[in-house]
Amino acid sequence: MFTTNAQIHQFGGILHKLSHDSTSTNTKMDVNVFVPPSSPAKSIPVLVYLSGLTCTPNNATEKSFLQYFASKYGFAVVFPDTSPRGAGIAGEDDSWDFGTGAGFYVDATQEPWSTHYNMYSYVHKELPAALAQHFGQLDFATVSITGHSMGGYGALTGFLRNPGVYRSVSAFAPISNPLNCAWGEKAFGNYLGADKNTWYNYDPTHLIKSYTHANQPDILIQQGSLDSFYAKDHQLQPENFAAAAKDAGYAGKIDLHIVEGYDHSYFFISSFVEEHAKHHAKHLGLIQ
Amino acid sequence: MFTTNAQIHQFGGILHKLSHDSTSTNTKMDVNVFVPPSSPAKSIPVLVYLSGLTCTPNNATEKSFLQYFASKYGFAVVFPDTSPRGAGIAGEDDSWDFGTGAGFYVDATQEPWSTHYNMYSYVHKELPAALAQHFGQLDFATVSITGHSMGGYGALTGFLRNPGVYRSVSAFAPISNPLNCAWGEKAFGNYLGADKNTWYNYDPTHLIKSYTHANQPDILIQQGSLDSFYAKDHQLQPENFAAAAKDAGYAGKIDLHIVEGYDHSYFFISSFVEEHAKHHAKHLGLIQ
Repeated sequence: MFTTNAQIHQFGGILHKLSHDSTSTNTKMDVNVFVPPSSPAKSIPVLVYLSGLTCTPNNATEKSFLQYFASKYGFAVVFPDTSPRGAGIAGEDDSWDFGTGAGFYVDATQEPWSTHYNMYSYVHKELPAALAQHFGQLDFATVSITGHSMGGYGALTGFLRNPGVYRSVSAFAPISNPLNCAWGEKAFGNYLGADKNTWYNYDPTHLIKSYTHANQPDILIQQGSLDSFYAKDHQLQPENFAAAAKDAGYAGKIDLHIVEGYDHSYFFISSFVEEHAKHHAKHLGLIQ
Repeated sequence: MFTTNAQIHQFGGILHKLSHDSTSTNTKMDVNVFVPPSSPAKSIPVLVYLSGLTCTPNNATEKSFLQYFASKYGFAVVFPDTSPRGAGIAGEDDSWDFGTGAGFYVDATQEPWSTHYNMYSYVHKELPAALAQHFGQLDFATVSITGHSMGGYGALTGFLRNPGVYRSVSAFAPISNPLNCAWGEKAFGNYLGADKNTWYNYDPTHLIKSYTHANQPDILIQQGSLDSFYAKDHQLQPENFAAAAKDAGYAGKIDLHIVEGYDHSYFFISSFVEEHAKHHAKHLGLIQ
């Protein structure tokens, strides 16, 4: 049961700002859903956009311009939040890269996080099922996924762990090998515990090695060359993912573009969102 | 002399975040300038975008999506600030609709405002001259102007008071008849004083009556029907401007669209920025 906080006209369609009580996170969750004015498909396909560290559903809604292309091609966009908020766990607001705004799209197994920090189940199971009930005109059987940074990692992980569910996946500057970077070590260590074997279930660079489903579409990834999380801090490492896919014989192309001069911001995202929208529109059956 | 605070890659071009010491406002002023990657014109034409109440140059830069179309058509965009900031005048931060963030694009004649609140001279004279010095590749002789709300009023006023300077003008939900609304009365009363004769110089609905220059292009205006500043508070009144233009025999069409369901937000602006960009690209000689 969703509460509608706002319905805003944009690009001929409607942006729905919703909230609901989640059984995965045991908190109230906000989500934005853009419904285009029309679609070549009888029932409107869906693109899920997972945001990065610190973001609410509003950042990408206001700054990505994905809705312009969603309106053009005829798909809906779902913008989930990046974590539970107000769970009341001691320390959850202490860091910008862990806890609130940093749920890392995992199901936490460790106390005190496991009661609330279950963003994997929320994003890939609870939320689409609930939205399918709420929006009869949307086709949650025809769905693709993308995201930025932590959300790019979430999109790749979600695609690889749910074979056949997502028609296509793409990512903007994804955390591609979280086992191998400071952000991932901090998040997984706290949410999943010390046993690194459990971490592999959430690492795209690992997951693609055992991916065998027949649906192996090209995977589009953009990475800004001047993104300091990439070039300086080595948090992102998309090359590791591309190399693992190649080693594993993944049939699709890992279409990785290191784009000269671009950073990690929404200016970077909005610059390439057209390519990503076109990529997904194709796989969602909306264009040739 | 501008200080460059950031140069950000976007849509193949560069967004320059600049600041400089203004002789009009006697404060430091921020301005954002988007330079497209290329242009059909030898020297790149310019569109000035004036923002509304409370905005800095960053709001429209992040949320209007104008740069996408500037890149497509080949014009630069200048995003000035909406007032001096940090002038240190008692009371300037007390209201959201007067003082800081609300310079109303006038040259104040009344103390204590007249030393700093000279946004008319700043936007239409000082800033373009300074930017023309800084950016040799931009053609400030081929310039058009647009804006939102207070900035829409600023654009219309600037066009009408500087005949032949701006090739074309458009506006999103402009304050069209400020003499006749609460925002205008408050701003003009404080900045210009009690003598309403001085106010007429800044009212588009009045100014168009005496506009005689040969350049009388169509004027594109979008107004959301559910914008409460329009429908409820009567701050905007674009119909008054359209009627005055008709009475005055203005040769161009006042292309006023009351767009059903839209509000006053950046979601409204971004929804119609494509039409406005195309309008100006035509008048700037970039497309047929």
